[in-house]
Amino acid sequence: MSRAADYRHRPVMLAIAGDSAAGKATLAAGLVEALGTDRCLSLSADDYQRFDRTERVGMSLTPVHPDSNYLGILEQHLQLLATGQPVLKPVYDHAIGLRTRPELLEPKDFVIVHGVLPLHSKLARACFDVTVYLDPAEGIRRAWKMRRDTGDRGYTAEQVREALAAAEAASASVIRPQRVHADIVVSFSRISGRDDPADTPLSAEVLLRPTIVQPDLAQILRPSLTRTAHLRLTRDTDGRPVESMHVHGYTSEEENEAAENLIWNALGEPGAEVPQWLGITGAGRRSTPLAITQMLLLYHLLQGSR
Amino acid sequence: MSRAADYRHRPVMLAIAGDSAAGKATLAAGLVEALGTDRCLSLSADDYQRFDRTERVGMSLTPVHPDSNYLGILEQHLQLLATGQPVLKPVYDHAIGLRTRPELLEPKDFVIVHGVLPLHSKLARACFDVTVYLDPAEGIRRAWKMRRDTGDRGYTAEQVREALAAAEAASASVIRPQRVHADIVVSFSRISGRDDPADTPLSAEVLLRPTIVQPDLAQILRPSLTRTAHLRLTRDTDGRPVESMHVHGYTSEEENEAAENLIWNALGEPGAEVPQWLGITGAGRRSTPLAITQMLLLYHLLQGSR
Repeated sequence: MSRAADYRHRPVMLAIAGDSAAGKATLAAGLVEALGTDRCLSLSADDYQRFDRTERVGMSLTPVHPDSNYLGILEQHLQLLATGQPVLKPVYDHAIGLRTRPELLEPKDFVIVHGVLPLHSKLARACFDVTVYLDPAEGIRRAWKMRRDTGDRGYTAEQVREALAAAEAASASVIRPQRVHADIVVSFSRISGRDDPADTPLSAEVLLRPTIVQPDLAQILRPSLTRTAHLRLTRDTDGRPVESMHVHGYTSEEENEAAENLIWNALGEPGAEVPQWLGITGAGRRSTPLAITQMLLLYHLLQGSR
Repeated sequence: MSRAADYRHRPVMLAIAGDSAAGKATLAAGLVEALGTDRCLSLSADDYQRFDRTERVGMSLTPVHPDSNYLGILEQHLQLLATGQPVLKPVYDHAIGLRTRPELLEPKDFVIVHGVLPLHSKLARACFDVTVYLDPAEGIRRAWKMRRDTGDRGYTAEQVREALAAAEAASASVIRPQRVHADIVVSFSRISGRDDPADTPLSAEVLLRPTIVQPDLAQILRPSLTRTAHLRLTRDTDGRPVESMHVHGYTSEEENEAAENLIWNALGEPGAEVPQWLGITGAGRRSTPLAITQMLLLYHLLQGSR
């Protein structure tokens, strides 16, 4: 709309959608660190809350419900950012459940939008170059949510259980339906039938849909080169053929390091070290499946910017 | 940018610019009441503050300085409203000097934007159908500011005097230069040489520039019909010829009422009563010069919507 808009630099836009506590912020954080905050802007679509926590009480609305969010304004802001324009983004303080003053965001080379509903509407989806849906095993997501919400957000365990039950209807009707719109679906889970130690990283199943040009992983992940990750032709939830990358969480540290170097050489910068920020899941904890997932997304972001 | 934007209803947009306490909100309030809040949205461009009052203390920035405002976002929001789209407008609480949660605004048939800097940039000006600059005599503006800021905003008289002195540089460099961009310039003042009672309404001098199609007031304000208002061909501040309407504050109530009916019949709705909301300057106080100025603006708004 601005006369200058067409000449502005347009960022590469990545969406990371998923239910509450699906690991969106953790996935995004590694990408921001690897790209650098001077080149990469990360924002939460969950900041577009229409009500404070106390205002919602009498409404029987959960914060993930579309009616609890300014989704039209989110669409507008995604369009503005995608065309290189700044936005005054609303802010929601999850720790205390209050909407507060907005903040000015200028688009950078890369814009990462994570949240429960960034892929809800067609207009919003059209703003992204790459879309990801995070779909961890439900038991794992519940454990993650319990740890975070009782730790950082001041809820009791009973309140978290109530919140999960209250949110299930919206999860089923508006959050999980976004999965079908993602170019990449990532599921972290424990491999059934194995008896790994408790601190073994989770394995990742990464569906690579042909809705965008995916890298030729068959050339990289030959069984003779690595046991950490492998490809498999499988069927998507709708029955259509899809490529699936499986990354094991239980392989040895040496194998993992070799696999990460192999993949980063092919997808990232040949000859460069694997960025130390990839795969970080918490203080002192690291996951090769997460790191390799992040490498795949970095590949798409860097491809998109060329 | 939205694919639906071209089909959205575009509002008629009016800007009311002027220095702090120039009477912008009072002028706007009568228009909103006359048009009805279901058809008319009014917003303050002064809500786009970048800092809280306390944050500005160490910066030697006054709130009217362009660097104290998100003027780029104001431009963006004016463009969005002008094309029929909603905005999430920031909010500044002038009473306590704090930025607070934003509010959702949907454009209506008429959008009135009042503030100190709505005509600062060419892009912002391009969003308006009609632009007004309020230019009361400086002594009157200072008296209005003193009364409002010590009354509603919790300042002491000494603080208001300091604020006026501190703001003078920005007034001269960025606020008053907007006067030249207005289609209509309104100056309220006391007529020099007269000894009217203290509660006599101020007179208004209304410059009607040919930058928009002005109504043919020469047909309406014939000296044989009214003494309350008259036209005069004069020179604008840059020396160019301009029409000037003078509305006296001191004529009798009967003459004023007749003049208001005469003008409202010609500019507003023929045969209809003068809207009771026009001319209100405070509790129980009314000004015919203000009412007639508002009628002129209502004419432009209603013309623009046809």
